[in-house]
Amino acid sequence: MTAWWTHAIQQPNAEQREQASAHQNQLTKPPGSLGQLEDIAIQLAANQNTLNPKVDNVAIRVFAGDHGVVAEGVSAFPQAVTVEMIKNFCAGGAAISVLAKEQGADFKVVNVGAASPVQDHPKLINQPVAAGTKNFCQQAAMSQAQFEAAFELGKSIADQAHQEGMDLFIGGEMGIGNTTAASAIAASLIDLESGMEQQIQDLVGRGTGVDDEGLKLKQQAVLNALTLHKHAKGDAIETLKTMGGFEIVALAGAYLRCGQLGVTVLVDGFICSVAALAALSINEALRPWLIFAHQSQESGHCKVLQALDAKPLLSLGMRLGEASGAAMALPVLKLACSLHNSMATFASAGVSNSGE
Amino acid sequence: MTAWWTHAIQQPNAEQREQASAHQNQLTKPPGSLGQLEDIAIQLAANQNTLNPKVDNVAIRVFAGDHGVVAEGVSAFPQAVTVEMIKNFCAGGAAISVLAKEQGADFKVVNVGAASPVQDHPKLINQPVAAGTKNFCQQAAMSQAQFEAAFELGKSIADQAHQEGMDLFIGGEMGIGNTTAASAIAASLIDLESGMEQQIQDLVGRGTGVDDEGLKLKQQAVLNALTLHKHAKGDAIETLKTMGGFEIVALAGAYLRCGQLGVTVLVDGFICSVAALAALSINEALRPWLIFAHQSQESGHCKVLQALDAKPLLSLGMRLGEASGAAMALPVLKLACSLHNSMATFASAGVSNSGE
Repeated sequence: MTAWWTHAIQQPNAEQREQASAHQNQLTKPPGSLGQLEDIAIQLAANQNTLNPKVDNVAIRVFAGDHGVVAEGVSAFPQAVTVEMIKNFCAGGAAISVLAKEQGADFKVVNVGAASPVQDHPKLINQPVAAGTKNFCQQAAMSQAQFEAAFELGKSIADQAHQEGMDLFIGGEMGIGNTTAASAIAASLIDLESGMEQQIQDLVGRGTGVDDEGLKLKQQAVLNALTLHKHAKGDAIETLKTMGGFEIVALAGAYLRCGQLGVTVLVDGFICSVAALAALSINEALRPWLIFAHQSQESGHCKVLQALDAKPLLSLGMRLGEASGAAMALPVLKLACSLHNSMATFASAGVSNSGE
Repeated sequence: MTAWWTHAIQQPNAEQREQASAHQNQLTKPPGSLGQLEDIAIQLAANQNTLNPKVDNVAIRVFAGDHGVVAEGVSAFPQAVTVEMIKNFCAGGAAISVLAKEQGADFKVVNVGAASPVQDHPKLINQPVAAGTKNFCQQAAMSQAQFEAAFELGKSIADQAHQEGMDLFIGGEMGIGNTTAASAIAASLIDLESGMEQQIQDLVGRGTGVDDEGLKLKQQAVLNALTLHKHAKGDAIETLKTMGGFEIVALAGAYLRCGQLGVTVLVDGFICSVAALAALSINEALRPWLIFAHQSQESGHCKVLQALDAKPLLSLGMRLGEASGAAMALPVLKLACSLHNSMATFASAGVSNSGE
């Protein structure tokens, strides 16, 4: 039996894409004048195999996990914050809780591996793989079995949301220390022209807000990890296993599964883009199922988006994670669909077309 | 009696600004991690003089007028489209009609001066100043009396929406030929280091999509206008009168009135930004009442935003006008308010703060 993640990714419907594109040119506006909104509507029409794309049933799943690498002093916040924020997500007080509620999205938190136990809650899928990863500066972050469990959890989350009728998947993450993990994964998977030192400077940012000393510690941690796990270079699964976090692995698994199910994914910021990078490295056929929501202020995101050849929808100076950037881009998708489905055509409205 | 537009603009509440800023730093997120969303919430709190800013009652007014300068061959679409689109706005088939309806905004069209008569409609405020402007390559676009009538109409539209309880004003425009007028106004009001030829190249774009020949005709028309009306250089009212369109004058009047009334304005793309530039040139105290919605694809918009020192919220490659870019940015304002008002604080959620 082959591993689930090697199964085929679906292909968007090329004929629907053509029809959607032709339809856009009939709407009462100069051709192309809705810019990325036209691209989004066309992509969703092809992905959903429909004349009338829609984004009504949105599943937002925030994956949370802890990171052994915090022992290196890489975060501005104590590790306890991961669990505290899981509770805050459930209680409705976090940014993503507010954004999901305001937009009527189905929101759940997934504990993939917080360092301490978390009490059950209706909004919590409480299935920790372990009490945080190991410190990847000293050893692999997780075992093969743990990797597969986290990856499979991501898959099952996507499966369940699909069964519940989702037409868009948004993944998010929470985990003190996880920008360090994401930077290490990105550095292992991206081939930059520059040397390793420059690459680390480009890919390691301030996360939740470390000072200059913290930034140096992060850079050193990533350098140590890349050196220790150099056999993983360019190998997505080895990279995720040795330097990942459980939440990043689960995200990559959920993304791949969405492509297999034919569900479009709205990718959040730096860490989610790195999970997408890993997923694409496992199967590049996933590409048309991904829409990149925003350009994060986290400095490494720019290089990751370049590597993905992605043009994100928004750039609002955000750097919070939690799927908050994707949630901010959700109205763009919804309104792009409304325009595509509800605008009049030149013919129906009796409006003269350009030069005709 | 002094002219209404010389009356004082209100000042946002500095104390509310301080309190809103302090509140943002208590919310469960790294300080600053919501980027421009924090700035927007703070600005709206100061402008609305409240702890809980909101954007619930949005007035969208699209001003439409025709332009004598179309005789110079400056547009890809025939002049008839202005009236045809007024009907399309009313019937609900235009992009802004769809975007306003989807978001529950109060939407009306204002005929400030279409070239042909338009039938009345519940969504139409039908008060044309004249049947289009004169060709400003040959004479002033409008008389002093026409200027004052269009300016006053903009004011009265703002007054009426204010009486109806609006908490945000969005202006839009429609008028075949009006990117040419906007480019001429911008060139007259912006002092660029570069010479006039470079300035015209920077500020004149393809509008609804003219070809290379059309672009040359536009550039020539703007050059001719600037030469004919060089006495207007740097004088906003003279510039609006000699090279404006009725819809641009009405927008500038509405914006100034919003500042007098203490209502925040969400400014749309190129033409609306030029109207804002003119309004600011008349009274720079208007500045804190303006939020710039998006970076249009229209090439001159970049220079105008620079002149305004404005950092727009979105950049989606749009170039449609009609207030469509502002309508796309509306969810950003709404969600920024929701986050400000509904997120938990570190204390209330029991989340550990950074390094404390």
